[in-house]
Amino acid sequence: MLKEFDFDKVDKRFDSFKRSELGEQLDQLQRIVQGLKIPVLILVDGWESSGKGAIIKDLTRELDPRYVRVEVFEKANDIEKAHPASWRFWQKIPSNQEIVVYDRSFYYHVFNHDKKNQKKLDQRVRELSELEKTLIDNGTIVIKLFLNITQKNQKKRIQELEKSSRAKLLLSDEDYQQNEDYEKYQDWFDQVLDATDQKYSPWHIIGAEDRKLASKTALGIVIEEINNGMERIIQMRQQEESVSRDREKTYRLLEEVDLTQTISDEAYEEELQPLQEEAAELVYQCYSEDIPIVLAFEGMDAAGKGGAIKRLTRYIDPRSYKIYGINAPDSVEDTFHYLWRFQKELPKDGEMVIFDRSWYGRVLVERVEGFAPERDWERAYDEINQMERTLYDHNTAIMKFFLYIDSNEQERRFQDRMEEPAKNYKITAEDWRNRDKTPQYIEAMNEMLKRTDTDYAPWYIVASNQKKYARIQVLKHFIAYLKEHLSQ
Amino acid sequence: MLKEFDFDKVDKRFDSFKRSELGEQLDQLQRIVQGLKIPVLILVDGWESSGKGAIIKDLTRELDPRYVRVEVFEKANDIEKAHPASWRFWQKIPSNQEIVVYDRSFYYHVFNHDKKNQKKLDQRVRELSELEKTLIDNGTIVIKLFLNITQKNQKKRIQELEKSSRAKLLLSDEDYQQNEDYEKYQDWFDQVLDATDQKYSPWHIIGAEDRKLASKTALGIVIEEINNGMERIIQMRQQEESVSRDREKTYRLLEEVDLTQTISDEAYEEELQPLQEEAAELVYQCYSEDIPIVLAFEGMDAAGKGGAIKRLTRYIDPRSYKIYGINAPDSVEDTFHYLWRFQKELPKDGEMVIFDRSWYGRVLVERVEGFAPERDWERAYDEINQMERTLYDHNTAIMKFFLYIDSNEQERRFQDRMEEPAKNYKITAEDWRNRDKTPQYIEAMNEMLKRTDTDYAPWYIVASNQKKYARIQVLKHFIAYLKEHLSQ
Repeated sequence: MLKEFDFDKVDKRFDSFKRSELGEQLDQLQRIVQGLKIPVLILVDGWESSGKGAIIKDLTRELDPRYVRVEVFEKANDIEKAHPASWRFWQKIPSNQEIVVYDRSFYYHVFNHDKKNQKKLDQRVRELSELEKTLIDNGTIVIKLFLNITQKNQKKRIQELEKSSRAKLLLSDEDYQQNEDYEKYQDWFDQVLDATDQKYSPWHIIGAEDRKLASKTALGIVIEEINNGMERIIQMRQQEESVSRDREKTYRLLEEVDLTQTISDEAYEEELQPLQEEAAELVYQCYSEDIPIVLAFEGMDAAGKGGAIKRLTRYIDPRSYKIYGINAPDSVEDTFHYLWRFQKELPKDGEMVIFDRSWYGRVLVERVEGFAPERDWERAYDEINQMERTLYDHNTAIMKFFLYIDSNEQERRFQDRMEEPAKNYKITAEDWRNRDKTPQYIEAMNEMLKRTDTDYAPWYIVASNQKKYARIQVLKHFIAYLKEHLSQ
Repeated sequence: MLKEFDFDKVDKRFDSFKRSELGEQLDQLQRIVQGLKIPVLILVDGWESSGKGAIIKDLTRELDPRYVRVEVFEKANDIEKAHPASWRFWQKIPSNQEIVVYDRSFYYHVFNHDKKNQKKLDQRVRELSELEKTLIDNGTIVIKLFLNITQKNQKKRIQELEKSSRAKLLLSDEDYQQNEDYEKYQDWFDQVLDATDQKYSPWHIIGAEDRKLASKTALGIVIEEINNGMERIIQMRQQEESVSRDREKTYRLLEEVDLTQTISDEAYEEELQPLQEEAAELVYQCYSEDIPIVLAFEGMDAAGKGGAIKRLTRYIDPRSYKIYGINAPDSVEDTFHYLWRFQKELPKDGEMVIFDRSWYGRVLVERVEGFAPERDWERAYDEINQMERTLYDHNTAIMKFFLYIDSNEQERRFQDRMEEPAKNYKITAEDWRNRDKTPQYIEAMNEMLKRTDTDYAPWYIVASNQKKYARIQVLKHFIAYLKEHLSQ
């Protein structure tokens, strides 16, 4: 891409416009995409000293500053390093009200730092490309710009910058290294650009020798791409649901679960505390070894998730974990990609986070209640697997528990809750309503348990008709999994 | 407090209970305070090796884990250091659904690190005490526990911990230092405890030699204090509004503003760009010198805040600032102290944040529309002054602009907006409704401009009947203020 770039034939389509005209056009577009609730993400990457700052200034200058954000990604800080590579980009994605410009693309680190370990590099590129794809699939317009300059021009700019009063801040070792080893870098950039150039999201290489023209070209491309993106997204939204999906296929995991399994009161009393202590000790070990832990609890209403979590955490140092009870997204969360609110809460290295209900809502309640169209929840199985794989690749211990009870037991528990004053806050009309949809929920649960059961993040289905049995099973699996994970 | 503490006469009121009984009582209370929407914050501080971890475990064990959070405060990280001392505690305050336990109190740093610079120390204690007080005044229950042990017992515990497999993590230099210089530390702790012991928020010194008894006592005190707190808050909420307030006093700043001031088109064209460039240069200097900048824009509807902000920021590197347009709090923000959503967005050192409308909503729209009761907005003048002083003490450049137009000019602009398609999204029925309350708004604005005009964060009232004049004035003040601030 860079090697074949002809600086004598740069894109001049937008040269006849004024920058302020293009800026105002973009400002109008901004209000349109905002009205359509389409988030826009512009990634600006390129050579050092290629003028990214000036281009970003021109891109944003005419926009309503309340709906545009510029996010700078430099070397990852300590908190960012204690998460997967994609995490810090997830934190700053645009809401459906915003145009967000990233100074540096997702691939900045790959461009500049990852040359040695090919396996790690492939993994990182895959992870970041998955982030890009899921944003696009879920209706974000993503635009990738790369500013290209020649070795000679780069040198000239560095020399100019050296004279500036801001030289210390504007120039770093990287500028000099790139210029010295220009061809080596060019070769490497091309590899990364090739690997991350997608039909649905191409790189736009902008010849940045002429600063003014480069700005106009950047503005022009952004305007074009927003127009294209709007068309794509509006079409997508209007389309009849026509996803390729084998509707006949049924999954039957749950009906094979032996719900008669129980434990005696004596055995429970005897086993509980030692298991709790062992669980606490293992969490402590993970803390010492900087291993993050993610737990997701799903299950039927009244299956005993809360009780199981309480028993599991009893001896674990409360300073080392957090529990998030997941409800419907609030008004802010609703303006972001559906995984954003979970990404926000993921543990850093050494921490444990327990989700009481989780991102699986996408393929359960959102599917059954029709909150998400079929094409969206159908795609979510892959998206979720990718997210979990990313966590696993970052050495996260990830466990998913599904607490299963049959319909009779559920009805009994609902009745109990109704009758017991201390518990009846736990039961609402909605719980009863959901029961009417049990067959659809069971179908969705079965499909989820099948399609998101992976080597790196397996489901553990817990027969929960007897609460005590379920609690012991959760503890035992937790312990077995962590032991295995720690021994790797 | 510590020196006179008699370990032979520790509090035994709760000794006859089981820990689990007290825990369950607390669990019941949790649901009650949650129903009443009262946030609870428990600060656990004390000597090293005094058993804070175990006590926090016992405090939280029986609670519904979805509504309890434990936050650990150790040495401040880089991001925390780049903000005022109170900032990191602000980030983690409880919502009105939660009980939150802080491992270490607000005063941890003062207990352990601030012995040399008396002035800085006083400032820090004042800042943190103000945080504590505003939480309490706004209806949070704050409970402060300090775990006390003798020198001999501390030594014994350190020796026990040395044998543990977790010794490396559980013991630090501080443990040994405190034990070696026990009396010196005791003396110092007493000074800090005295300085931060308040009638409305006393320290509870808990003798922690007997671990079990200490846990029971902590649980018992927390239960007592939540009960006391609920009573106080319910009373406060039911009270007739009876704040001491001089209702006759009127402030007349705005009517003295000379709204006839204008600038010619030629002078505007000539002055604008050089001022914009100078503003950009000064922001750059602040960035180089790690000085944070906070701007608040208030003013009449249609006074031209957005346009002034756009002109001000035109040449400023968009990577160095963020703009927040402030609307009514969303459903999450609404569950927190009213300043929390602003605290979240404050700049770290070297960054600039512009608030388009701000925390002054408390004494403007919330006052006039009755969203906050009189006792709350009356107190807010002080709370806001304190917050701004804290920023100033952290070397923040803080500027507040009030854009003033008269009623005729406002009506003219409303009409314009109605008629111009590109602008009519800017005008709503609410804007017209607000006009009916102009006298009340003017009164509230006058009082705000008077009572929150401080040396450290002065108001700058901008005559804005002519937009161009207003924009130039904002730029000029911005430049003058930053020059002055940079020269200090």
